Amino acid sequence: MTDLQSKNPDFDRVVRDSFSRQPFMAFVGAKIEDLSPGICTLTMARREELTQQHGFFHGGMVGSLLDSAAGYAAFSLYPENSTVLTVDMKVNFLNPANGTSLRATASVINVGDKIYHLKGDVYSISEGEETHCMTGVFTMMCLLGMSDAPNLGRIKGAV
Amino acid sequence: MTDLQSKNPDFDRVVRDSFSRQPFMAFVGAKIEDLSPGICTLTMARREELTQQHGFFHGGMVGSLLDSAAGYAAFSLYPENSTVLTVDMKVNFLNPANGTSLRATASVINVGDKIYHLKGDVYSISEGEETHCMTGVFTMMCLLGMSDAPNLGRIKGAV
Amino acid sequence: MTDLQSKNPDFDRVVRDSFSRQPFMAFVGAKIEDLSPGICTLTMARREELTQQHGFFHGGMVGSLLDSAAGYAAFSLYPENSTVLTVDMKVNFLNPANGTSLRATASVINVGDKIYHLKGDVYSISEGEETHCMTGVFTMMCLLGMSDAPNLGRIKGAV
Amino acid sequence: MTDLQSKNPDFDRVVRDSFSRQPFMAFVGAKIEDLSPGICTLTMARREELTQQHGFFHGGMVGSLLDSAAGYAAFSLYPENSTVLTVDMKVNFLNPANGTSLRATASVINVGDKIYHLKGDVYSISEGEETHCMTGVFTMMCLLGMSDAPNLGRIKGAV
Repeated sequence: MTDLQSKNPDFDRVVRDSFSRQPFMAFVGAKIEDLSPGICTLTMARREELTQQHGFFHGGMVGSLLDSAAGYAAFSLYPENSTVLTVDMKVNFLNPANGTSLRATASVINVGDKIYHLKGDVYSISEGEETHCMTGVFTMMCLLGMSDAPNLGRIKGAV
Repeated sequence: MTDLQSKNPDFDRVVRDSFSRQPFMAFVGAKIEDLSPGICTLTMARREELTQQHGFFHGGMVGSLLDSAAGYAAFSLYPENSTVLTVDMKVNFLNPANGTSLRATASVINVGDKIYHLKGDVYSISEGEETHCMTGVFTMMCLLGMSDAPNLGRIKGAV
Repeated sequence: MTDLQSKNPDFDRVVRDSFSRQPFMAFVGAKIEDLSPGICTLTMARREELTQQHGFFHGGMVGSLLDSAAGYAAFSLYPENSTVLTVDMKVNFLNPANGTSLRATASVINVGDKIYHLKGDVYSISEGEETHCMTGVFTMMCLLGMSDAPNLGRIKGAV
Repeated sequence: MTDLQSKNPDFDRVVRDSFSRQPFMAFVGAKIEDLSPGICTLTMARREELTQQHGFFHGGMVGSLLDSAAGYAAFSLYPENSTVLTVDMKVNFLNPANGTSLRATASVINVGDKIYHLKGDVYSISEGEETHCMTGVFTMMCLLGMSDAPNLGRIKGAV
């Protein structure tokens, strides 16, 4: 979709604040590279503890990065006082993620009342060369009336 | 499937050895709880660095655990001198993973020549109560003639 | 899940009535074999026009049958004055569907406020032998305040 | 991917011949609109027998059309004396398919030795307006040494 509009004028701050409250993203060294309404790009540098037995990024880690990118791409469009939930994640592993860093970009392709559909791709980067290592489709839910903060207070009947 | 037979009499040692060579699994504290031909169960205790903004296990982490369980469930059936590759991962997030530990079990449901189909589930465990938090279907490939060790030497024409 | 309860005491009539209003199901000769709250089994006999180039049931047709079974398994739990929508369908093709009939069973594995998660399997049947030919996971949405009848009147803000 | 090359110089004839041997495609009135190496577009006109209870194209039918487009997009790249098998299909339903025709396009995004990854989209068309109604990712397998003709003779060890 083009020219997606966020329902929250303060989306940039809200998304970056939520991202900074995900201990797992800090643990694995993921960063927001780019953010605009409905599109989010995350990057992650290779560290040995993120790899599998062949020395590549662990597939689960590749998927985790893309799942987070998709969640924040959706969340960037949501109104205030809401949070995001992954309903479903479907990814194909195209090539080994054997680069020195990963770049995951997800974008919203359809906006429903509660359901947002997204697509996403991960590239493995090494010495300026990019290898397409994952593609996928995600379903995200917008939970209205529910705080994104840790002690989330679920408003009765909100979902 | 019932009564699955491994093509490798030494499957238990081979799988545990491969698992021990996945730095990412050690990094997140995942352990093999149970292993039999075609079935693998992994567990992981909650640590703050594995969580997202609501204090639950990060969804990507839940998926990573199940992906590894599925990979090793398939690999447990493979012949010697082979390795495993995730082709595709499809998971639904059923409930927040807000327990003190996770248990992921995957099992092979169909064996092809190169393609293995698996299903898997993750339960979040807290004070003896189990919550079903993820279900999924996986496609794994058996790469014959390719070592599972880090400096994998790909035999020409093997796949 | 066990002991699923429908929110509609009249679910059996409502599901069969909706099924009978799907021209495509009549066109391909699909029938309801079994129905209970949260579980639906459909069958379809082989006819040449349902096949692909190898003479097997067309894969899309196998998926269509399972999608319908999943939709009605979810719908059987819904309250009155609602309808069902497939959000997402993920299926693996395990074996060729080369039997004389198909049997597709889907069941609800998790009930949310609006989102229902289901799993399903299709067996190809020939001379009493069953071959597992498809497995999958589905996400269905419950659209409240929206009629299941053809000229659906969507109540503003219902979804 | 750009500039995909078919391994079969005669791909156009081979794909159209295979398509013409799918009784199900004729039954539902699907046609090849466009075909180039790695990309296939199919169309289908609305007929009442292809609809569900709301009068829209049945979701299974929408998925069937996209599955066929994906299969032939992959098959268009294969060498002689091979056939195609869907390993896995993952689709999201974005909007009701309430147009007077459907157009499904699938394209290969990655070519492996045996495994081909594809993406695809379906648009519902009505009075010149297009609605994006489905997006998905597919895994297709190339079965070498196996005829695409009905009485397929499977060469031992071919897969």
